Amino acid sequence: MAAFKAAPPIPGSMQDRTFTALAEAGDDVTVAGWVHEVRDLGGIAFLILRDKAGKIQVKFEKDELDDELVETGLSVHRESVIRVSGSVEEEPRAPTGVEVTPDTLEVVAEADPELPLDPSGKVDAELSTRLDNRTLDLRKDEPKAIFEIRAAVLQAVREAFRDHGSTEINTPKIVATGTEGGTELFPITYFGQEAFMNQSPQLFKQLMVGSGLERVFEIGPIFRAEEHNTPRHLNEATSIDFESAFIDADGAMDVLEAVVTAAYEGVWENAQPELEALDRADDFTVPDGEFERIPYEEIIEMVNATGALDEQLVWGDDLPTEAEKALGEELGEHYFITNWPSEVKPFYIKDTDDDPAVSTGFDLMHPRLELVSGGQREHRYEKLIAGFEQQGLDPEAFEYYTKMFRYGMPPHAGWGLGAERLIMTMLDLDNIREAVIFPRDRQRLSP
Amino acid sequence: MAAFKAAPPIPGSMQDRTFTALAEAGDDVTVAGWVHEVRDLGGIAFLILRDKAGKIQVKFEKDELDDELVETGLSVHRESVIRVSGSVEEEPRAPTGVEVTPDTLEVVAEADPELPLDPSGKVDAELSTRLDNRTLDLRKDEPKAIFEIRAAVLQAVREAFRDHGSTEINTPKIVATGTEGGTELFPITYFGQEAFMNQSPQLFKQLMVGSGLERVFEIGPIFRAEEHNTPRHLNEATSIDFESAFIDADGAMDVLEAVVTAAYEGVWENAQPELEALDRADDFTVPDGEFERIPYEEIIEMVNATGALDEQLVWGDDLPTEAEKALGEELGEHYFITNWPSEVKPFYIKDTDDDPAVSTGFDLMHPRLELVSGGQREHRYEKLIAGFEQQGLDPEAFEYYTKMFRYGMPPHAGWGLGAERLIMTMLDLDNIREAVIFPRDRQRLSP
Repeated sequence: MAAFKAAPPIPGSMQDRTFTALAEAGDDVTVAGWVHEVRDLGGIAFLILRDKAGKIQVKFEKDELDDELVETGLSVHRESVIRVSGSVEEEPRAPTGVEVTPDTLEVVAEADPELPLDPSGKVDAELSTRLDNRTLDLRKDEPKAIFEIRAAVLQAVREAFRDHGSTEINTPKIVATGTEGGTELFPITYFGQEAFMNQSPQLFKQLMVGSGLERVFEIGPIFRAEEHNTPRHLNEATSIDFESAFIDADGAMDVLEAVVTAAYEGVWENAQPELEALDRADDFTVPDGEFERIPYEEIIEMVNATGALDEQLVWGDDLPTEAEKALGEELGEHYFITNWPSEVKPFYIKDTDDDPAVSTGFDLMHPRLELVSGGQREHRYEKLIAGFEQQGLDPEAFEYYTKMFRYGMPPHAGWGLGAERLIMTMLDLDNIREAVIFPRDRQRLSP
Repeated sequence: MAAFKAAPPIPGSMQDRTFTALAEAGDDVTVAGWVHEVRDLGGIAFLILRDKAGKIQVKFEKDELDDELVETGLSVHRESVIRVSGSVEEEPRAPTGVEVTPDTLEVVAEADPELPLDPSGKVDAELSTRLDNRTLDLRKDEPKAIFEIRAAVLQAVREAFRDHGSTEINTPKIVATGTEGGTELFPITYFGQEAFMNQSPQLFKQLMVGSGLERVFEIGPIFRAEEHNTPRHLNEATSIDFESAFIDADGAMDVLEAVVTAAYEGVWENAQPELEALDRADDFTVPDGEFERIPYEEIIEMVNATGALDEQLVWGDDLPTEAEKALGEELGEHYFITNWPSEVKPFYIKDTDDDPAVSTGFDLMHPRLELVSGGQREHRYEKLIAGFEQQGLDPEAFEYYTKMFRYGMPPHAGWGLGAERLIMTMLDLDNIREAVIFPRDRQRLSP
């Protein structure tokens, strides 16, 4: 396997070390990291030292080395932190083709002999044990690779947004009203006032497309007090949000195609060792940049034709999970469902000009779940107010938002993409919690 | 003034427009944006149209144009959204050297004649009015420039972190315990349990340097229920956090110097028009990449020698604002105060090896305020537990954190930089609220 990225050294005494992946035969090095494994074969013993970049073999020829050094190196508990200085020699049988003969060995932080999980990966652990002990869990190549890939995704997504002329914004997470009213919000006590944790930057990003910024993106936390407890729901998630003036739903889908494709490309280009660690390097496919766009009306017919459901779907129905699965088999990994019925979409989604029962709202689907929700937004003040009332929301409570629609709000469109859903589907993870370092669900509030 | 960045067009009917800054003499264009100003001189009239990229003059020679087009163009209220198609001709007297003679003009979104603030910038508005109406406020060049610069800062900072081998992480904002105990936390109701909004990613980023990620950064919201109400405090802010295994306080300061310098460089290289809009292009200085590091003990002597304070400072005192100002006059824009007394620093800051009363904690100072707090962290389990107890905190409540220090926690160091403080000092803003689109303070919870 290729080495992981080796960070350049930061000057300063404690960083005066060579990453395992950079140690070459003939070098004198100091390596530091965790004791991955010790194998004592009698006259000779090996210690495998692990760092961010990979692993390196340290050789103890007992007759040749100082007794105390041998005793220290071979008695140290697994997962202790040590620092070793010595010379690097070629050794074809070693995992990286080289090994270190130690001159000095220092135990920097001794680990307890009993560990709550085994970072060598030899013993499997339950997900809950892994989440309770993420420090140890992320010493394993596979979970660590997920988070290196997650970082590569966010980097690629931001670059794609900037290539499309979007400005990064940050909007508040403490809010007076939820985006879609009072449901599914976590309440906060804010200096004696009632407030909530924001469930979506929707209204704020819309306010910004009416400003001189025109086209914006935000990657930040969202909070949903949903009582779901499934492998695909989180109560705190990372949302990738886009919104632009002067585009319609098709323009928003164009940008979304570019962003999702960029995410896959970024991982393919910058995270090959991580894909290998996850055994995904061979079947990882970068999308071709265009996803089919199929109106809801046709989707309903397609689902009914599959015979996957006991009862036929009718206009206005949401898609049950089995329908999504059946569609995935026909339509592949990514496809759009466009023109959802207006009644199932929130007030801020614009209806089509031809038929008020049909909206401009779209979803980007994956066979396992919905990845994105988007659409053109209602930018006409009177229609917006009417939409609030139709959904039983009080427009007065949202005056900070609606008022701006009286001062020249351009037509606009956008979407919100769940970062964890993107990573979960990209890497075919069983549980969305695998894509969050410290997930939050109904039971889990710590660490 | 140079034009602002012109975004590339997104394909699709509504985006079929030319940005003002890209219109060249001889082109046939469609421009869309806001009515900035209309000047009717009798036989001839001018409409200035404004978009994300800048402004363009639309000329109405009344005898030559269709009466209805003239009537529509000259009666439309300021800040309405319009779309104009026409031919571009050279006109040296026009603001951008060209003007558009319209063939068609469409009012896309009419604005009310009465506006809560004047986006042309001719009439000043109070900060509170501006914050209530950010959509209109950010149509002005100056406030808009602040947020384009903010985006450039975040981009440059992330690149600098990646250049130093750091992995981007996201840690939870809903937590069971605060970083420094129960003070200054906003309480949440989380499925019937007591929880809080996190005041710092401190403990989580430390848990990650003990994992295989080793060196991490996070840019995300932090929440502080401080009752301060000053021009330099926010109750929701953006924190730029860094943490790395195997470095000491000096290594952490090295990275901080690189990151702050990169932020200034990124703005200088990518946001010249925005610096011009803020009238900062002439006096904007990129730091030389090294900030003086002065121990607290010497700082106390320096302050006392300035005579700026009525009473002499003694060891253990915090620095009053006047002291920070006096030091700024001697030490310039950025300097470190290192080796703070252990007693004023939190439990997770490591003491120096020589003297337990002196810590490895440092602050990066600016004459106007403290920008950064950092230090080497206590990585030894027993010392960490003792530190909790010394500060009157119950280590049991933090077991998810302390436990990991028993399984091989490397020496590590890091810091947290307030994004808004960086931008406020970089651009010499009067009030930190200028650096946040929708700030949160004791009074302000909306928009």
